[in-house]
Amino acid sequence: MVYNVPPMELNVAVAKVGRYATSESGDTFEMIERPQGGLSFVLVDGQHSGRGAKNISNVVARKAISDLAEGVRDGAVARAAHDYLFTYRQGKVSATLNIISVDLVTRTIVLARNNHCPAVVITPSGLRWLDQPSNPVGIYARTKPNMTELPLQAETAVIVFTDGLMSAGEFTGRQLDLPALARDLTDYGMLDAQRIADALLAAALEADDGRPNDDISVVVLTVTDEESRDGARRLLVRAPL
Amino acid sequence: MVYNVPPMELNVAVAKVGRYATSESGDTFEMIERPQGGLSFVLVDGQHSGRGAKNISNVVARKAISDLAEGVRDGAVARAAHDYLFTYRQGKVSATLNIISVDLVTRTIVLARNNHCPAVVITPSGLRWLDQPSNPVGIYARTKPNMTELPLQAETAVIVFTDGLMSAGEFTGRQLDLPALARDLTDYGMLDAQRIADALLAAALEADDGRPNDDISVVVLTVTDEESRDGARRLLVRAPL
Repeated sequence: MVYNVPPMELNVAVAKVGRYATSESGDTFEMIERPQGGLSFVLVDGQHSGRGAKNISNVVARKAISDLAEGVRDGAVARAAHDYLFTYRQGKVSATLNIISVDLVTRTIVLARNNHCPAVVITPSGLRWLDQPSNPVGIYARTKPNMTELPLQAETAVIVFTDGLMSAGEFTGRQLDLPALARDLTDYGMLDAQRIADALLAAALEADDGRPNDDISVVVLTVTDEESRDGARRLLVRAPL
Repeated sequence: MVYNVPPMELNVAVAKVGRYATSESGDTFEMIERPQGGLSFVLVDGQHSGRGAKNISNVVARKAISDLAEGVRDGAVARAAHDYLFTYRQGKVSATLNIISVDLVTRTIVLARNNHCPAVVITPSGLRWLDQPSNPVGIYARTKPNMTELPLQAETAVIVFTDGLMSAGEFTGRQLDLPALARDLTDYGMLDAQRIADALLAAALEADDGRPNDDISVVVLTVTDEESRDGARRLLVRAPL
């Protein structure tokens, strides 16, 4: 398929820390290619923290990734992830789930949200705070995701996070004003995914005096009109060992 | 588990282009968290190029990722990916498969290779060119991977690529001397994953006069003794749209 559209670039940046003094984050982030073209990103926050939370978030992320890899549509993927966890743990365990897809067939960005944490969407017409009520997966029968679809166009950004970002500063009395922060970080159309993700994480760590009280994960996706020099796809991972 | 080891950092950089004038690369790269701790990276090159190759490499990568996500050991994952493709396409279609795992249980880097292209391994004792004969998956009954295991320690690097890198320059008479290039790029213990991946891709594109005759993918993994400032895991994706 050839589209007569100006060149654009997708940037996705993820920054992730575990709760202070735990050996691993209970959040899981995974990405996968969509079989018909595009990429999907999955962020899951398992109930509680540490090893138990990690097991839950791994299971939910794995189920979502495996369905996405087989071409299942995003809304059904979120429903299936819920049903799977609900059945597997008898409705006793919850997880938040966000799926962000860049669908090259429909030329849209598709957001599925099962998370009380809002998401931020920036389009050429401005910033929106997606905060419709939303249930986590795993505990209420027949839970559905909140779905949002955006045209795949330049000057677009999506910011998704787990509740460690919302609750940062709860114990120091310095909670973040996330809508204001998101607005500042994207002012004048500056959409640098890595800079936004790093700045949000840094603000949260600062508010928690460097000792996060919960796992924190931030995912920032931007579409800009930058043209790639060499047409290459690039990926970079950094992790302390 | 707590290990009394000095802090280290894992860096993984991937750079990937499709064959000139095709809309998508037939190579597939995927990563997944290992359920017991660590990360696995899968690179698959499907036979031929374009849509058909992409379908094959997607199927093989999906099978490998799905087994790795369930905790299957790497050697068995490669065997299963072979058996799956061999059965599904009756031995008529081949793909090369590389799995690179950072296993935090065994504290090793595990390499599984079903690829005639060698891999480069750099450890504190020097550079090795892994070029034992190796079959692709999908066409010969009971194909096994070549396995290599390295201790997870600083001053280590692994470079894995698809055959577009080996064959770059075939038509211009300027093929790359990959062992020499790898040695130059890691001289004096400089192990910057992104720089190495970008330099290898740039050299290949240069040798092909900017019009690659095959899909080219390069994966570079390094372990250094850098200490993370904030303990965060980071991921960055850039893709032309």
